[in-house]
Amino acid sequence: MSEVIKKAAEAKEASVMLATASTKQKNDALLSMAEALQNNQEEILAANAIDLDNLTKKEGYNKAFYDRLKLTGDRVLGMVEGLRELVGLPDPIGEVMGMQTRPNGLQVGRVRVPLGVVGIIYEARPNVTADASGLALKAGNAVLLRGSSEAINSNKALVKVLRQAVAAVGLPAGTITLVEETDRSAVMEMMRLNTYLDVLIPRGGASLIKSVVENASVPVIETGTGNCHTFVDRSADLQMAEEIAFNAKTHRPGVCNAMETLLVHQDVAEDFLPGMVERLTVAGVEVRGCEKTQRSADNVVAATEEDWYTEYLDMVLAIRVVDSLDEAILHINKYGSKHSEAIVTSEYHNARVFQSHVDAAAVYVNASTRFTDGGEFGLGAEMGISTQKLHARGPMGLTALTSTKFIINGDGQIR
Amino acid sequence: MSEVIKKAAEAKEASVMLATASTKQKNDALLSMAEALQNNQEEILAANAIDLDNLTKKEGYNKAFYDRLKLTGDRVLGMVEGLRELVGLPDPIGEVMGMQTRPNGLQVGRVRVPLGVVGIIYEARPNVTADASGLALKAGNAVLLRGSSEAINSNKALVKVLRQAVAAVGLPAGTITLVEETDRSAVMEMMRLNTYLDVLIPRGGASLIKSVVENASVPVIETGTGNCHTFVDRSADLQMAEEIAFNAKTHRPGVCNAMETLLVHQDVAEDFLPGMVERLTVAGVEVRGCEKTQRSADNVVAATEEDWYTEYLDMVLAIRVVDSLDEAILHINKYGSKHSEAIVTSEYHNARVFQSHVDAAAVYVNASTRFTDGGEFGLGAEMGISTQKLHARGPMGLTALTSTKFIINGDGQIR
Repeated sequence: MSEVIKKAAEAKEASVMLATASTKQKNDALLSMAEALQNNQEEILAANAIDLDNLTKKEGYNKAFYDRLKLTGDRVLGMVEGLRELVGLPDPIGEVMGMQTRPNGLQVGRVRVPLGVVGIIYEARPNVTADASGLALKAGNAVLLRGSSEAINSNKALVKVLRQAVAAVGLPAGTITLVEETDRSAVMEMMRLNTYLDVLIPRGGASLIKSVVENASVPVIETGTGNCHTFVDRSADLQMAEEIAFNAKTHRPGVCNAMETLLVHQDVAEDFLPGMVERLTVAGVEVRGCEKTQRSADNVVAATEEDWYTEYLDMVLAIRVVDSLDEAILHINKYGSKHSEAIVTSEYHNARVFQSHVDAAAVYVNASTRFTDGGEFGLGAEMGISTQKLHARGPMGLTALTSTKFIINGDGQIR
Repeated sequence: MSEVIKKAAEAKEASVMLATASTKQKNDALLSMAEALQNNQEEILAANAIDLDNLTKKEGYNKAFYDRLKLTGDRVLGMVEGLRELVGLPDPIGEVMGMQTRPNGLQVGRVRVPLGVVGIIYEARPNVTADASGLALKAGNAVLLRGSSEAINSNKALVKVLRQAVAAVGLPAGTITLVEETDRSAVMEMMRLNTYLDVLIPRGGASLIKSVVENASVPVIETGTGNCHTFVDRSADLQMAEEIAFNAKTHRPGVCNAMETLLVHQDVAEDFLPGMVERLTVAGVEVRGCEKTQRSADNVVAATEEDWYTEYLDMVLAIRVVDSLDEAILHINKYGSKHSEAIVTSEYHNARVFQSHVDAAAVYVNASTRFTDGGEFGLGAEMGISTQKLHARGPMGLTALTSTKFIINGDGQIR
């Protein structure tokens, strides 16, 4: 039996107990996990130091990757607080929905249940280990984790501590399992494990996600890519538009809800673009624009067709002047990644048309796309942002980690 | 450009218009489709006759397959009525859910939207062509259909009529598209068409479904296999138990919600089994049982381990005597296909334990598993019965063919 199957079977067995665990048991486990992380911080940071050391020995290692891999006292505290916050969220499991009595007297309704075993394939950040495990546990699920090989020592230390903490309050240690085999074949095996895994969530760069979507037979929830737009309509309050666009681009350019292309209605391009582009340029943003943008403002490089498709995740912005609201919507639906899209307008009709015609997980009127986040949307915590339409769309909170089953109560009904 | 891509692109374009079509437009299209089927019945039956004729020319053709392929005036009328019934169902699109105002003044909620393009891969029954198209359309989706090669003439005739009917009321003909290429490579191409298809629903036998689950990169909703159980608890009203079990096995043995294994608590085995087995045997059911079953009743063949896993879809039943409720639940969760499971009991606690511990799409107390059906559950109509946990579980009504998007209304909020 391979390591992957052994661990998956352990998780599956744990998931059976978790499905009927009480809210108190699950909250006790979360508090125990938080305390254990705090008490074993030294051990965790020492393991992380080995990973960091191994990374720096590699030729041409990536500085950004090093930063994501690095744990500090503050980052451990972040995990601890994340786990404690989950305790306060309502337990989604057991909610009964739509119970009705049918003409034949059968009572039929649905009850919310856990998914079962959630497989998570992720990249450098070791904090995902604690965050994802806690979120899955609160919704009654076991996890089978597979982090990147560079984080293996950190993840092993974290999982060891978390498993002991869960077992200490009487829930199975198999609630949290980690695939330690760092060979790629282990990931491939995980992707085909339909008998044990109920869902697979890849978290990381575009190539990881693409590989999982293409190779998995286990149902996948696709997360991530955000080629987000802001459209400045002809009736926009131009001061508001500038604040929103500047925030969406520069507040945190490396994340998926940052703006990548700014669309501007031709009627306001002359008034709006010079100041906007200057402010962006001064802030260090490289601007690439269509011909009209180049005519309206200085320091604009010519944009190519490829720019419209690109998620820069960097201080680069594409700008295009469009003829109309319809052209803006067509552009977004063609080039966007269906993540977060915004219009700045003062026309009621245009706000409504934009919101109904743009096909994306989150469609904004007069606000920055940076708000697409579980916490900001009031979901409490999130397991990533789904860009697919099946099962979960947008920030995935606890409910996204659940399923339902029909319950039917009769007194002898037959067909 | 291949036929599959050409058709998929047509469906995708149609789906953009359908997403904002009014309820009236969609209902008009459904009524137009129903009328067109009625008016063109001769043409449809003539095309079906060609398919039937081709099938009988094949060596050793399957009689059951022939029956499923065959259309009659009554079956066309069934499609017509199915389409008309959809008109009366509430339109799920546009419902706004959970709209709340966040502390920063942002209004955040979700609105129900269509999935987009639904791919359906199905086997002999040509009525799926009309039923699935109608259901998808009511929920604002376009379909890309791929029926079996044996039904190609029937499906072409049906789709021609349906497309004209949809176009006649001003919706795009691309609402309903059919892959006419009968080569298997067309199916493979469909399974990898993530750019155009939002979901793939296979409808048919176990091998078709397995092939789609294993090969598709498009998100799949798995339907079908039902290895369903009825557990007769020690406290069951034995007369009720006999009626329920007899109904679940014999009412329509060839469908997925029929019972395949009967579990009996050892305390009532001696009282219950002789009469039950005799009634089943007289009705023509072959009974395969564990040793205790064989000791309790006559005419029982020895069951093997494989029997517990088998979905007979036939007049065959496996019977096992179990020590306890727990053993019954373990058996079901190990051998079952997570479709429909029933307990017959008079103990409140046991009813609750069974319903919370059995992991299946539909869990019954004191009723026949035969009720697992969209109509019986009050969903109006169904697109099959999902046995997976993601997105939809159990009978899939109109809501299962929808997604949601977040809508966010602000007045200049930035982070």
